[in-house]
Amino acid sequence: MEKYSIGIDIGGTNTDFGLVDKGGNIIEILSLSTKDYFDYEIYLNEVTKNIIYLIEKSPNKDLIQGIGIGAPNGNYYNGTIEHAPNLNFKGIIPVKEYIENRLSEKGFPLKVTLTNDANAAAIGEMIYGGAKNVKNFLMITLGTGVGSGVVVDGKIVYGHDGFAGEVGHTIVQPVGRLCGCGRKGCVETYSSVTGIKKTALELIRETCTNSILRTLPEEEIGGKTIYQAGMQGDELAIKCFDITAKMLAIGMANAVAITSPEKIFLFGGLTKSGDLLMTPLKKYFEESLFVVFKNKIELKLSDLDENNAAILGAAALPF
Amino acid sequence: MEKYSIGIDIGGTNTDFGLVDKGGNIIEILSLSTKDYFDYEIYLNEVTKNIIYLIEKSPNKDLIQGIGIGAPNGNYYNGTIEHAPNLNFKGIIPVKEYIENRLSEKGFPLKVTLTNDANAAAIGEMIYGGAKNVKNFLMITLGTGVGSGVVVDGKIVYGHDGFAGEVGHTIVQPVGRLCGCGRKGCVETYSSVTGIKKTALELIRETCTNSILRTLPEEEIGGKTIYQAGMQGDELAIKCFDITAKMLAIGMANAVAITSPEKIFLFGGLTKSGDLLMTPLKKYFEESLFVVFKNKIELKLSDLDENNAAILGAAALPF
Repeated sequence: MEKYSIGIDIGGTNTDFGLVDKGGNIIEILSLSTKDYFDYEIYLNEVTKNIIYLIEKSPNKDLIQGIGIGAPNGNYYNGTIEHAPNLNFKGIIPVKEYIENRLSEKGFPLKVTLTNDANAAAIGEMIYGGAKNVKNFLMITLGTGVGSGVVVDGKIVYGHDGFAGEVGHTIVQPVGRLCGCGRKGCVETYSSVTGIKKTALELIRETCTNSILRTLPEEEIGGKTIYQAGMQGDELAIKCFDITAKMLAIGMANAVAITSPEKIFLFGGLTKSGDLLMTPLKKYFEESLFVVFKNKIELKLSDLDENNAAILGAAALPF
Repeated sequence: MEKYSIGIDIGGTNTDFGLVDKGGNIIEILSLSTKDYFDYEIYLNEVTKNIIYLIEKSPNKDLIQGIGIGAPNGNYYNGTIEHAPNLNFKGIIPVKEYIENRLSEKGFPLKVTLTNDANAAAIGEMIYGGAKNVKNFLMITLGTGVGSGVVVDGKIVYGHDGFAGEVGHTIVQPVGRLCGCGRKGCVETYSSVTGIKKTALELIRETCTNSILRTLPEEEIGGKTIYQAGMQGDELAIKCFDITAKMLAIGMANAVAITSPEKIFLFGGLTKSGDLLMTPLKKYFEESLFVVFKNKIELKLSDLDENNAAILGAAALPF
């Protein structure tokens, strides 16, 4: 009998749900706008409703093994989201406990497993993607923030308190730009979708470089318009990708020095920029590597479909 | 029956040998001057002679479990020393293979296990020191260079090619000082014994800060004289420790973001400076930590006697 699970990807913008079979086929998908919620209880009630909708859509409710959730600042050990800078919900959110209780009340006593969203993507890559036979790798997700999953000897590194794998919050420019986390110079404040927007606004304000981006209202400047400008050879847009790549390269090279991966998989919105990002990234990455790692580590785009990887990774947690 | 092993600490100056029992008692110690040898075969023959001497000194030859070696740039997977900048032997030295063959020829078919010297210190801390029940920790060694051993779930992280754990060669100041490795702004170029000397010379050259260090010839400025000046309240010397601490703190905070340890153990020459280093280090470390790790991670000086830690760590490898 085919077994099922429900995978949930909580992002700053959307929360995506998938009913998934053990083979990695997504049977049904749902989505919810995370950013519209400011009270975590109202949000988690809505999440629970979506879960129940999918349970009832499944061919056999009794074959659902559990719920897997990938979330920013998700803590695997506690089942909580803690101090996520890109969510409206501040402090420590008891996601696992809250949803398990609501589901139980509704007659579905299913277990919820939660992990960091990038860890979920790494698990997805390991089970369904390009990391099937790779024992040591990094998964870097370039979305609203910069997430990462660190895999050593075939296992996600959770560390002492479940928060390992925050390459996005390693400091690469101590006298640099303020990050949403309150410190200066984190990878995330440069190399995320929000980071590249900050870079564009800074370059518009502080340089004379000609750019079609100058003709846009500030709220229209973002990953997509910077990409479009870059594709037309816009100097300022290309400079944005250069800075994004340089900071990410240092963060990745530092993570390599600590964990010595075989490959690094890149995933998420910014990777759609293709060579605009990847060409300077590969150059700066090699430059930034400690000598024993040079020309050894493969940078790859994720094999997984972006929309589904996080759901698949999360769905793999209960199996 | 008590079991034994032979631990060897290969350093640029000396090679120290210890016959050790499983309880961590050193039965007999030997030493060899590494720096007097320029041919690795002659050197390794001498090392083998010392091993055989210790085997014959042991209460029962059959109870010797093996030989453990900690060495700079030691590769655990290959049993080699690779491109160690502080040794006379250049290139890739097949230490394990060579010694095992010589021992076999002499009728002692013992297994040799080799690892990076900082990993050996981490293992020593885990088995005989303050990390006995600690599953996730970092060992940072502050000597001529900055070494580190990363322990996740009770195991040393070797990574794909055996070179994981190079916190000393993570970049914390991309526009900073040149490092011996050829890149800029590594932790090691600031926070090692050679790093603090570079800082002192820079401050002497580039600032007007009064200092008793200005009265010393350049070759006398080093870890010891900077420490002595600092203990007398010398402003420039205190500034040296401040910079050393700040750069190390960022490197450690970045390693924390990636591996989420419970504790960090510090070890080696610079730690003898006590509060001159530890007070600013603790301050900058907390400042540099990503919010989820703040006030959680204990910084500790190693429990092990500095002279024996490397031998004990190496000796623990065969057990």
